Amino acid sequence: MTVDALTDVAGLRVGHATRSGEGWLTGTTVVLAPEGGAVASVDVRGGGPGTKETDALDPRNVVQRAEAIVLTGGSAYGLDAASGVMAWLAERGRGVRVGPDPAHVVPVVPAACVFDLGRGGNFGARPGAELGRAAAEAAGASTPGAPVPEGCVGAGTGAVAGGLKGGVGSASVVLDSGITVGALVVANPAGAVVQPETGALYGELFQGRVEYPARSVHEAARRRLAEAAARNAPPLLNTTLAVVATDAGLSKAQAQKLAGTAHDGIARAVRPVHLLNDGDTVFALATGARPLDEHPLALNEILAAGADLVTRAIVRAVRAAVPADGPGGTWPSYGELYGEPYGAR
Amino acid sequence: MTVDALTDVAGLRVGHATRSGEGWLTGTTVVLAPEGGAVASVDVRGGGPGTKETDALDPRNVVQRAEAIVLTGGSAYGLDAASGVMAWLAERGRGVRVGPDPAHVVPVVPAACVFDLGRGGNFGARPGAELGRAAAEAAGASTPGAPVPEGCVGAGTGAVAGGLKGGVGSASVVLDSGITVGALVVANPAGAVVQPETGALYGELFQGRVEYPARSVHEAARRRLAEAAARNAPPLLNTTLAVVATDAGLSKAQAQKLAGTAHDGIARAVRPVHLLNDGDTVFALATGARPLDEHPLALNEILAAGADLVTRAIVRAVRAAVPADGPGGTWPSYGELYGEPYGAR
Repeated sequence: MTVDALTDVAGLRVGHATRSGEGWLTGTTVVLAPEGGAVASVDVRGGGPGTKETDALDPRNVVQRAEAIVLTGGSAYGLDAASGVMAWLAERGRGVRVGPDPAHVVPVVPAACVFDLGRGGNFGARPGAELGRAAAEAAGASTPGAPVPEGCVGAGTGAVAGGLKGGVGSASVVLDSGITVGALVVANPAGAVVQPETGALYGELFQGRVEYPARSVHEAARRRLAEAAARNAPPLLNTTLAVVATDAGLSKAQAQKLAGTAHDGIARAVRPVHLLNDGDTVFALATGARPLDEHPLALNEILAAGADLVTRAIVRAVRAAVPADGPGGTWPSYGELYGEPYGAR
Repeated sequence: MTVDALTDVAGLRVGHATRSGEGWLTGTTVVLAPEGGAVASVDVRGGGPGTKETDALDPRNVVQRAEAIVLTGGSAYGLDAASGVMAWLAERGRGVRVGPDPAHVVPVVPAACVFDLGRGGNFGARPGAELGRAAAEAAGASTPGAPVPEGCVGAGTGAVAGGLKGGVGSASVVLDSGITVGALVVANPAGAVVQPETGALYGELFQGRVEYPARSVHEAARRRLAEAAARNAPPLLNTTLAVVATDAGLSKAQAQKLAGTAHDGIARAVRPVHLLNDGDTVFALATGARPLDEHPLALNEILAAGADLVTRAIVRAVRAAVPADGPGGTWPSYGELYGEPYGAR
């Protein structure tokens, strides 16, 4: 029984903390590894990244496993959310043991942020340690294998995708080998997720034959978007974030390769991407429950699946998003403009 | 007057050397910078790269400019082609001066290879210094702004793209700012360039509304490809190579960013990509004839164009390829299977 989400990778849990209203439109999402952590790495491709504890994930460095990954709104300020997750983990004795006392641990909690400052109207309303803690608590309280709430929740609360409302999306697949791969994204890119000539979602072009939206629908949508864009402050900074995970046993270097190729999945759903005002960052987690075949190319199917899942998770994020209209701006949703899914899923 | 090719970037010339028949099906392509070289960098994303002089292009290292870029068949053996290009340049006094004698130069000639060993039937028939020299001579003898021969020439002679014949493609654009960006690719990927559900070229999905090939055409094509694949040795290694160039003034670090985002263009045309058996490598060249605006995001339009041009150059490579059928294998061409362009270009 799978739920087509990151939580299909056994042992991983996801928790969101969401704040909206009264100047807020932001939040934090935590991906919680099993006790003892998961092998972790990262690949940063955006030109304007905001990250914490990513150097520790370099395959040459000593740390092998992360206890949690934090994705957060609030730009670089929002990275404070990771401190709340660290505290929550430390209280439970989870982290790298650094002394004889079992309570003396340092949890490895890499984090990356999206830019959403001011989207709720108050530039200072951004996640801190308390929101990180709330997201960790939500993850810890969730049932194993639970569905992942998508759309405008957690770190996707204030997300915007090229003028449309963005959000959180997730997807998973079980490969023929029995290995599970999952992805979770926060879609907040500077580039477009919608093909300007047709109104199709770029990411759906990759999922088989699409029926393009009717021209009249697309023209009306473009007018609505242009009106909204004229009212909004031009977006300065953006970012797509992702966590790609598998139950396969990967080395840290293999996890880094997986994080790198997952960026191809962003490229297929967002055009242009990895710009100087995007901080696009992908984390990879491997729980190691299933050994990877020893064939030198065995990793390939996981790489291919990871990229495809990121594309699909971005589509789901955009399709799950709901319109936002408040003091910080107006962002229509794709569903509002184009209706329900029109083509292959 | 432009020719929609890399040579639209003023000062760049392209030369091919091609060998086919009698066991051969390979070649070398040289991109020749203007005298004094062009600012150069590289981004290697494939899991099985074969390269030479790429470490010199790291933005932290001393070399700033390359005299030429060599793309070659012959896997790692074929990197010898660069030696012939170095000799040709050195004879002309081109390179980094390393002594009082103007003839004492070391030309910077980074190179990358594609795997095409044995595709002509003879595993040992691969480019060496003489083929590199021939390609350099062809480049040097070419008219500035000349069209670039595409398809099964130069380093694309033995290229295969997911069972179809691959090759060389090129494209260019002049941006509103007046900056020219161009790309040249050698399309030899392990992944597919054709969407398996529809027969459309992935890269063309990004160019506006496509008319998908008729189902009967696609089914016949799939049968033909399956028959050919059953006769051929399974491809062990692959690779897509590209050179992206601009007449803008870029630092080496900016050129590296351009090389990195150009990989997004490969991801849109090839799925999956950057696998362990791909050596996907992109070089970037900047001649510096036009200053780049000082706005911190001014590079973005060049990044976006570079990725788009790589996608389009891959489409052109596949569309320009002709079928190959010989002792090393059978590779139908896209044009043979699907006919002339069916959709937006």
